[in-house]
Amino acid sequence: MIKLGIIGVGRIGRVHGESITKYVEGAEIKAIADAYLNDDQKKWAKEKGIPNVYTDYKKIIEDPEIDAVLICSSTDTHSKISIEAIKAHKHVFCEKPIDHDICKINKVLDELKKNPKVKYQVGFNRRFDHNFRAVRQAVKDGKIGEPHVLKITSRDPEPPSIDYVKVSGGIFLDMTIHDFDMARYLMDSEVVEVYAAGNVLIDNAIGEAGDIDTAIITLKFANGSMAVIDNSRQCSYGYDQRAEVFGSEGQVSVSNDSDSSAVISTKEGVTGEKPMYFFLERYIQAYAQEISEFVDAIINDKDTTVNADDGLKSVLIGLAAKKSLQENRSVKISEV
Amino acid sequence: MIKLGIIGVGRIGRVHGESITKYVEGAEIKAIADAYLNDDQKKWAKEKGIPNVYTDYKKIIEDPEIDAVLICSSTDTHSKISIEAIKAHKHVFCEKPIDHDICKINKVLDELKKNPKVKYQVGFNRRFDHNFRAVRQAVKDGKIGEPHVLKITSRDPEPPSIDYVKVSGGIFLDMTIHDFDMARYLMDSEVVEVYAAGNVLIDNAIGEAGDIDTAIITLKFANGSMAVIDNSRQCSYGYDQRAEVFGSEGQVSVSNDSDSSAVISTKEGVTGEKPMYFFLERYIQAYAQEISEFVDAIINDKDTTVNADDGLKSVLIGLAAKKSLQENRSVKISEV
Amino acid sequence: MIKLGIIGVGRIGRVHGESITKYVEGAEIKAIADAYLNDDQKKWAKEKGIPNVYTDYKKIIEDPEIDAVLICSSTDTHSKISIEAIKAHKHVFCEKPIDHDICKINKVLDELKKNPKVKYQVGFNRRFDHNFRAVRQAVKDGKIGEPHVLKITSRDPEPPSIDYVKVSGGIFLDMTIHDFDMARYLMDSEVVEVYAAGNVLIDNAIGEAGDIDTAIITLKFANGSMAVIDNSRQCSYGYDQRAEVFGSEGQVSVSNDSDSSAVISTKEGVTGEKPMYFFLERYIQAYAQEISEFVDAIINDKDTTVNADDGLKSVLIGLAAKKSLQENRSVKISEV
Amino acid sequence: MIKLGIIGVGRIGRVHGESITKYVEGAEIKAIADAYLNDDQKKWAKEKGIPNVYTDYKKIIEDPEIDAVLICSSTDTHSKISIEAIKAHKHVFCEKPIDHDICKINKVLDELKKNPKVKYQVGFNRRFDHNFRAVRQAVKDGKIGEPHVLKITSRDPEPPSIDYVKVSGGIFLDMTIHDFDMARYLMDSEVVEVYAAGNVLIDNAIGEAGDIDTAIITLKFANGSMAVIDNSRQCSYGYDQRAEVFGSEGQVSVSNDSDSSAVISTKEGVTGEKPMYFFLERYIQAYAQEISEFVDAIINDKDTTVNADDGLKSVLIGLAAKKSLQENRSVKISEV
Repeated sequence: MIKLGIIGVGRIGRVHGESITKYVEGAEIKAIADAYLNDDQKKWAKEKGIPNVYTDYKKIIEDPEIDAVLICSSTDTHSKISIEAIKAHKHVFCEKPIDHDICKINKVLDELKKNPKVKYQVGFNRRFDHNFRAVRQAVKDGKIGEPHVLKITSRDPEPPSIDYVKVSGGIFLDMTIHDFDMARYLMDSEVVEVYAAGNVLIDNAIGEAGDIDTAIITLKFANGSMAVIDNSRQCSYGYDQRAEVFGSEGQVSVSNDSDSSAVISTKEGVTGEKPMYFFLERYIQAYAQEISEFVDAIINDKDTTVNADDGLKSVLIGLAAKKSLQENRSVKISEV
Repeated sequence: MIKLGIIGVGRIGRVHGESITKYVEGAEIKAIADAYLNDDQKKWAKEKGIPNVYTDYKKIIEDPEIDAVLICSSTDTHSKISIEAIKAHKHVFCEKPIDHDICKINKVLDELKKNPKVKYQVGFNRRFDHNFRAVRQAVKDGKIGEPHVLKITSRDPEPPSIDYVKVSGGIFLDMTIHDFDMARYLMDSEVVEVYAAGNVLIDNAIGEAGDIDTAIITLKFANGSMAVIDNSRQCSYGYDQRAEVFGSEGQVSVSNDSDSSAVISTKEGVTGEKPMYFFLERYIQAYAQEISEFVDAIINDKDTTVNADDGLKSVLIGLAAKKSLQENRSVKISEV
Repeated sequence: MIKLGIIGVGRIGRVHGESITKYVEGAEIKAIADAYLNDDQKKWAKEKGIPNVYTDYKKIIEDPEIDAVLICSSTDTHSKISIEAIKAHKHVFCEKPIDHDICKINKVLDELKKNPKVKYQVGFNRRFDHNFRAVRQAVKDGKIGEPHVLKITSRDPEPPSIDYVKVSGGIFLDMTIHDFDMARYLMDSEVVEVYAAGNVLIDNAIGEAGDIDTAIITLKFANGSMAVIDNSRQCSYGYDQRAEVFGSEGQVSVSNDSDSSAVISTKEGVTGEKPMYFFLERYIQAYAQEISEFVDAIINDKDTTVNADDGLKSVLIGLAAKKSLQENRSVKISEV
Repeated sequence: MIKLGIIGVGRIGRVHGESITKYVEGAEIKAIADAYLNDDQKKWAKEKGIPNVYTDYKKIIEDPEIDAVLICSSTDTHSKISIEAIKAHKHVFCEKPIDHDICKINKVLDELKKNPKVKYQVGFNRRFDHNFRAVRQAVKDGKIGEPHVLKITSRDPEPPSIDYVKVSGGIFLDMTIHDFDMARYLMDSEVVEVYAAGNVLIDNAIGEAGDIDTAIITLKFANGSMAVIDNSRQCSYGYDQRAEVFGSEGQVSVSNDSDSSAVISTKEGVTGEKPMYFFLERYIQAYAQEISEFVDAIINDKDTTVNADDGLKSVLIGLAAKKSLQENRSVKISEV
């Protein structure tokens, strides 16, 4: 039985905690730590039967019985705790992004090189989603021939708070980063160049905070194929998460999931359900699957599904997109 | 150029008139006749460039230049005019049903036997619809293996007037008759037994007129397969016209047509358009195609697509359904 | 914490066991019993951490610490064990059907009257499915006005073994019984009359075993509305589970669930995934939900979602359908 | 009755000819002219009952009885013949594009200013399509709030011949020009800036001819909204013609039309029909509608639905896209 420690038990930390207790075979939570631990979190830990609850995450790092840690604390702590955990020979599941700063990510990569037995996985949960996996599989199986054009639509139901926007690193590093990783995953080629167009169309406060809320990003891949991602921070009908890969022999696309397939026909029209509201509803299965695969990688000594290099690459694309928007020109990844 | 006469230029007579002038190659309308001819009809004839306009249909029957007649007058005149036209060696397109009385239909069949060169087609327009033809083709091509179960949904957007209901022959001979013909067409086997359940759920006046407005009819075919038809006289969302054939190797189904594929997603849901309103909108292509094939059968001496025997068979099923409802028991076609 | 005992740990018993350990809050399995206990089952119990494993179910009935039992043994034992459990003041979750014999079901009902505090739930899992619940909700909310016609399509991917067919009680009591219960649930009215048409179209051996494999059943409800169910024991494309309610103001329908929304467009056509294979895949969420609600009914002293009377009613409809098929006539429930 | 002359009776000229004889009320073809007139064309004219057939288009321009001309000859003749026709006070329907050269288009605009009574329409047929009109209507009616992002997918089933590619003006002026016009139509704002990414992924010969076959084009509008268009010259599953407008309150999208709604479910999957093959199948209704509206504009002295300025604007965007691709940078329309 793999013993896990969760560092940071905010929303996503507890999502992983729920997954582990309900769905993940072969693992259990031995400890959690949160610098801002509150009563709710304590109560939650008790209900889940988690024996150790700390405010100091170092107690987890230092516990020789703990095999692996899940780093779910704020982004600015990811790389530091990653390095400490790797040094302590813990396997690491780290929420995305590893950091906004390439140097700090590289330090994690360096530490991993020194500890080749440590498994490191980055929290790109969408790679584990049933729909996107079906797209990947179809592409891999040659069902659509050579991939030419990828289209990703990714729209959130509502923008984060302005306070969050200010520290988020900007839409490309906070939101689009998932799409950048998805683009690499689905097209199986590296992005070499980015052009980003964007604007503030939803909330001026987002603009005043130095960010945009609506974007169209064009990617060029090493193999000559292309992708386009469109983002919005506010989608009235819910969480819009679609992808389509067009290739020489066909096209594969996935649409949104909803709570049921019910369709009501009346004199007003033929109406189906909206997409599920947001990531906690939409990706509940993907969250469970990513932790299952992380645990499986540890138990069976496999490569993790999303590694530290994937974590680095998506940030590089995000930084290129940021530069592209600022300078209104196409930017090569090699320029970042 | 085939010269046509239209007898009865009410709604459906003019629908055929429009089709002939716009879409049908190789035919032109030489005359129309209507016992209750009004100014609108005269004006319409003028616009279409129809040279002869009569109140007495016999002038059409007697015109040696006219090759074929379209009988679009009231149902009680169909068999009589059919016989007169056949005797005059005119080809006949007759609106459905030929009659409600099997004896009268048989007289038409007898007259046709005496005049084997006369082409006779019955107006089961749905056989010419792009969707139902695709179902028929899939079944014929063996795409679904041996057909086992047919399901037809056929709902009108609004009931006819109570005056019409009273002379309609009842829902089975007026409305379901199209579905009975469709059942024979799609399953390519003869109906041998019928069970009809029905009720008045929409308008008590329909019940008072001796009819029902909602029905579920089960058909058994000679080859052992089965069908179920459900009918309603009032469908809030338009004209609901669907069919599904389930077989040993698969299933084929068709859904409703609408004006566009537009789908609007808002916080209220994901809403597409309603089905087209009623038969004039939905089957405009089918009406044109049925007359084209009738003309083609004349020009190229082919069998008509829907013949007098098809006209007889659908009425037999209708009468069996009527008897089944009255006696609340399964009725064999051979009992009618 | 509610303590449960599972009697019979064949396929469905273990499905419930999985649900309880993974998804059901507030309950744990204290014991299982199976007369034909094998090593697989023992191993499974160990993995799930179930402390007591018996061959004699009476040890569960006699255990004063056990609050409730799940009866998942063969159908012929359901009523007997139900009565013993009720007498021992255990709450009972009983797989469907309670029995094929109305007298035996009535004895269970009698025993429940003597023990009004005992919760009794019958295993009609589909009532807990997200799609069918959405239909029920739409009907209840008046979204479609007064319900007029219900259509249920229910097709299994493959027939059971001929040995099973022989003891199954026939298609109506074994398979359609779920649809009969669904019909009552969705229309919220009692069935008063049944007409069943059926045939052997898939496997002659099923016919030789005295059963049919394809059926169309018409139901009449007390409130004047109607339903039609079509069944097949062998559906090439998987488990076909659909329903549609048509009413005075609209229609609501649900379609099949599949593993993903992926659609592949090629020169061969536009192809989506098949429905999920069979009930274990399709209704996994419903199985979890039904046990959750059973436990919730116990904890919070609520009525069970599907009670013994529901168990009786569905069998009555099944027996009427059987009689209808045998006598080829419409049969009133009151005749059974 | 408006009398029309068609100049150039290649494929598209005859498409318009068919529309006029079949669907357009109030107009008739008095003459056709084609410099390369062949027997097929002569035969076609005879069948359609067109009285005058010329090789020299000037005979049409000089005929005082002809009210309007349709210019369907090769692109390099469009502006010249337009000017001659306008000078002769003929109304003009001109196939797209008016020219690849802005100066030549401006000369047409100048001539129109001198002849303000002349109606001039450019052949952007897609504006008349039932699907795209439904999108425009939804946007106009405020169903989706303020439009933020438009996505157009436009893929041809097969590339034109290399000979044609060489004289086509490149993909942006030949193919994407329809999408540029559609973008202006759907968003009701002017494009101010363009970024085009493109590659040769289908046929190297296209690259050798100096063109590309796959493109992603980002447009920025004056009102701050954005659009993305993706093009391919070779789509294995047919003519892919979709659009989606996302706005502050919702989203509207349209999908492809196919010959029927038939869906076949088998063990291989659930398969619907491919999109219609190409523009002649897909836009037959739109072609008829555009000529009907042109004739209506003449008869009732209305503005044409697509005017010469629309013809100019789309070419300007095309030239900006060309420059953007060549220089791999975002190009303002004002730079062209």
